[in-house]
Amino acid sequence: MAMAALRLPSLSLLRSPSKSLLSCPLSLAPRLRHLRPRASAHISGGGASRCISARSLAKEEVSSSATPSTDRKPSSSYEGSVTPRSVDFNAWYLDVIASAELADYGPVRGTMVIRPYGYAIWEAIQEYLNVKFKETGHSNMYFPQFIPYSFIEKEASHVEGFSPELALVTIGGGKELEEKLVVRPTSETIVNHMFTQWIQSYRDLPLMVNQWANVTRWEMRTKPFVRTLEFLWQEGHTAHATAKEAETEALQMIDVYKKFAYEQAAIPVIAGRKSRAETFAGAARTYTIEAMMGDRKALQAGTSHNLGQNFSRAFGTQFTDENGQRQHVWQTSWAVSTRFVGGIIMTHGDDAGLMLPPRIAPIQVDLLLGFVIVIQSVYEVILMNVSIINYQVVIVPIWKTANDKSGVIDAVSSLKDLLLKAGIKVKVDDSEQRTPGWKFNFWEMKGVPLRIEIGPRDVANKSVVVSRRDIPGKPGKDFGISMEPSVLVAHLKSRLDDIQASLLHRATSFRDSNIVDVNSYEELKAVIAQGKWARGPWSASDSEEQKVKEETGATIRCFPFEQPLGKMTCFMTGNPADEVAIFAKSY
Amino acid sequence: MAMAALRLPSLSLLRSPSKSLLSCPLSLAPRLRHLRPRASAHISGGGASRCISARSLAKEEVSSSATPSTDRKPSSSYEGSVTPRSVDFNAWYLDVIASAELADYGPVRGTMVIRPYGYAIWEAIQEYLNVKFKETGHSNMYFPQFIPYSFIEKEASHVEGFSPELALVTIGGGKELEEKLVVRPTSETIVNHMFTQWIQSYRDLPLMVNQWANVTRWEMRTKPFVRTLEFLWQEGHTAHATAKEAETEALQMIDVYKKFAYEQAAIPVIAGRKSRAETFAGAARTYTIEAMMGDRKALQAGTSHNLGQNFSRAFGTQFTDENGQRQHVWQTSWAVSTRFVGGIIMTHGDDAGLMLPPRIAPIQVDLLLGFVIVIQSVYEVILMNVSIINYQVVIVPIWKTANDKSGVIDAVSSLKDLLLKAGIKVKVDDSEQRTPGWKFNFWEMKGVPLRIEIGPRDVANKSVVVSRRDIPGKPGKDFGISMEPSVLVAHLKSRLDDIQASLLHRATSFRDSNIVDVNSYEELKAVIAQGKWARGPWSASDSEEQKVKEETGATIRCFPFEQPLGKMTCFMTGNPADEVAIFAKSY
Repeated sequence: MAMAALRLPSLSLLRSPSKSLLSCPLSLAPRLRHLRPRASAHISGGGASRCISARSLAKEEVSSSATPSTDRKPSSSYEGSVTPRSVDFNAWYLDVIASAELADYGPVRGTMVIRPYGYAIWEAIQEYLNVKFKETGHSNMYFPQFIPYSFIEKEASHVEGFSPELALVTIGGGKELEEKLVVRPTSETIVNHMFTQWIQSYRDLPLMVNQWANVTRWEMRTKPFVRTLEFLWQEGHTAHATAKEAETEALQMIDVYKKFAYEQAAIPVIAGRKSRAETFAGAARTYTIEAMMGDRKALQAGTSHNLGQNFSRAFGTQFTDENGQRQHVWQTSWAVSTRFVGGIIMTHGDDAGLMLPPRIAPIQVDLLLGFVIVIQSVYEVILMNVSIINYQVVIVPIWKTANDKSGVIDAVSSLKDLLLKAGIKVKVDDSEQRTPGWKFNFWEMKGVPLRIEIGPRDVANKSVVVSRRDIPGKPGKDFGISMEPSVLVAHLKSRLDDIQASLLHRATSFRDSNIVDVNSYEELKAVIAQGKWARGPWSASDSEEQKVKEETGATIRCFPFEQPLGKMTCFMTGNPADEVAIFAKSY
Repeated sequence: MAMAALRLPSLSLLRSPSKSLLSCPLSLAPRLRHLRPRASAHISGGGASRCISARSLAKEEVSSSATPSTDRKPSSSYEGSVTPRSVDFNAWYLDVIASAELADYGPVRGTMVIRPYGYAIWEAIQEYLNVKFKETGHSNMYFPQFIPYSFIEKEASHVEGFSPELALVTIGGGKELEEKLVVRPTSETIVNHMFTQWIQSYRDLPLMVNQWANVTRWEMRTKPFVRTLEFLWQEGHTAHATAKEAETEALQMIDVYKKFAYEQAAIPVIAGRKSRAETFAGAARTYTIEAMMGDRKALQAGTSHNLGQNFSRAFGTQFTDENGQRQHVWQTSWAVSTRFVGGIIMTHGDDAGLMLPPRIAPIQVDLLLGFVIVIQSVYEVILMNVSIINYQVVIVPIWKTANDKSGVIDAVSSLKDLLLKAGIKVKVDDSEQRTPGWKFNFWEMKGVPLRIEIGPRDVANKSVVVSRRDIPGKPGKDFGISMEPSVLVAHLKSRLDDIQASLLHRATSFRDSNIVDVNSYEELKAVIAQGKWARGPWSASDSEEQKVKEETGATIRCFPFEQPLGKMTCFMTGNPADEVAIFAKSY
């Protein structure tokens, strides 16, 4: 999946454009696509300087716009639609990221700038997981990102897995370093180096920590959010006195991720165990949650590793047990990254743009003075952290005459306060430069779950129109919803719950209709060729798994925790099989 | 300030030690100090491998403890006191960091592992500032940490200031890179590269963003929290249409920092403008908050830069103004880092250890099931974010017989729920391995503002004893405080307010008694030689400022915003002076 350059019109531009644009047609999609140049410029070359195509584009623009006619610059206009998903899923994905202003390319090949709207989604993920990690007994801390190269070499399969992807610091303070430093691709080695110093006795166990950090992997095929040279993640690291405790912990954390995916992100992931070939470099077992994207490719959305004693043996991380014997600790590590944001986009988005589950929708802090901001912060913080009622609504006021305006604006203003106090995250778009229709499209592109439309007639009737993002057109609209506080709040909360449930239901149906049970390798090949997932009994060898990969492009995504009952026969070998495996092409 | 190795006993060890340690004397300070080896091993060498003394220490320990007599290992015992502050301030500082388990050394020279208790202080700083940044109109986002080397060279004074401190990635994915990548020391260059693409017109301005990130500066003289090779910070970056707006923004953000220092951290910083010589590399003006540490050295605790058009000219960051003319944007950047944690330690700590202002005291999430955890999370989150009543209390139950125990534990348990519901962050230390006296010392070392002691007699009397961390011994104790909810809660809140105010008052008195007005260079030399700060009228040249630095070791910390009235004469040249400057030795 090669990278294409994105030209992102800025949010402020979109919201306060020049007047001459008010009459522009909304759909300028061809022009937007035109801004995605060929991918080849981005994958060639190991260095940074040759890949700065976004920069060169910007430069062109600066010079072309040195004339006063700046209103005609392409980026000053809002492209109200994107490449249809069905036409080109990858182009659609990049268009949504550009149009919803989620991210942009950094100057170094494969790096990504996470823009405020995209970053707010990551913050929502962080806030939920952070609470869950603390509830399950983990403390946040921070390990340095520079790791002596020798550390990486200590665990044999770890170095094998990561050494091709390392970024190395060789010069510091103007001098060549005696030992190269690895920019962390993951922190097991440095964690174990420290654990070895902190752990002496069984009383120090379990030791359970987490860090939110950036990590670097020198990937050749990058894609915003899904696979970038540098990305943000959390990595949990724990040490235990027994193998059983470590296994319980690894399972617990994959379950935390699974619940997050289902309940917050409305992504019906399949949780299971990785095959030996797909296990994390250095782990005894890897558990995973696998999500089906809109193009039916699998996305590994989170992993939890039972590391066994692999790292503790490599780093001498020992404790004295209750009998005075020295033992190596048993460990886990587990991670979710900014890749999850890509998963949300590719699960729920449609031709109108991003579609955010209400419980993930980012905070939009409006800048009010004094008291209101405090109230709002408090409410939002409660919502974000307890994550039971994490809604979002945009209000679009509609008026034509100045007379109408004041009544509408007053109504919108009191509505807003009302919703904030009820714990609903709300955004008012009362800019005067845009038509209501433009705003409808814009906020649909941004994926806001609910829209309230309110015009002079609504004010007179003391009612509003409520539109769902997930159901286009009239069927998604509720007309004449009373402004009476208790009625309106109950209606909105119920609708947000409906949307949350509906997104999960829709994604689950899609997933289930695209997983096919297979009983022969021929069947598997046919299913994979259709772009679907294949599920079948498997007890074949690693080399047979490799053969499937080479011949079909599909890998074992996992042995799902949920298994059919009864005796089975491996579809590849005809030998008895204890489990079914799921095969799919993946990101 | 060379680094010395720290051996940090782990928190869990301290809290559940072997029984044979129960009778150990609390003060084993000489042994702890013994664990600080000579500094020389840490500052020599450019590489990583030679400097891993913590690691070698740990190795020694592992081998020596292969015998079953692990109870006698030094790190299994709690050293209840530290080097007295008055004896050796630097040793005291490192001892507090070790004993309160705030941080440890990383394996690479100059790097630091921030341990959970230290990280929680940083989280409290983050949570407060994050709300303030959003209130003042900034959005969080994330820029990549790898910057093409050519970017750094674009702004002349920027490259001059930062090039000696750069860490460079030269190898990626096993290949030599065409262009070296800088691991960000700060992000102005990459920010401008992106701003150039996002900003087209005056309607895109102001553009106001912030990121929480790690940064790397190859410092030769490091010290935990104060100056480390990698550190955590936030960096705000804004672009404006006019010089005046940028100046207003730069001043606004230094004021946000100043308020945080006074109101939350109880540090009476002096805010002002840096001299030309001390201005940030690439800035037009730098504003600073300067804090006086317990050894009277100055700590630059936060800075806000008016960048003028320096970076926008270097990167061609232009906008079209309302008249259709192309203009370069006016910019600011501003930052606070984990250095602030060092500032808190060195401002308030005493011979008994850390002393935390109640509004900074870290969260202690106790792991209760179900409902309570939600309630607690909600309360804590409100407290942390609104930051009006951000208290902390430790409850130490006291009993001798099993009969006594149940009554005490019941009382403590209901007390705890009560305080949580009242919004007081509370920790119960009911471990059975330690004596109450040991716990008192331990939680004093940890800097917890208030301690509640409760024994069988207190239960019978329905009262408790409340001890202040900031006033040692009997004068700091309130006896017989009723357990009646409203009385107790009011008492605790009032005491926490007292402590917050008292810490600020004490630090302010200390600061003011150590700033001396000078009217001649001779006077300045005498004052600096006494270790104090000198304040005097200054209008001399950069080279005269340099002379002061060379001859006295002191630099101009700032021209404070608060200036005396009337005509003044420069103490150095005898020429008229508009301002006084503050001179001091600094970290």
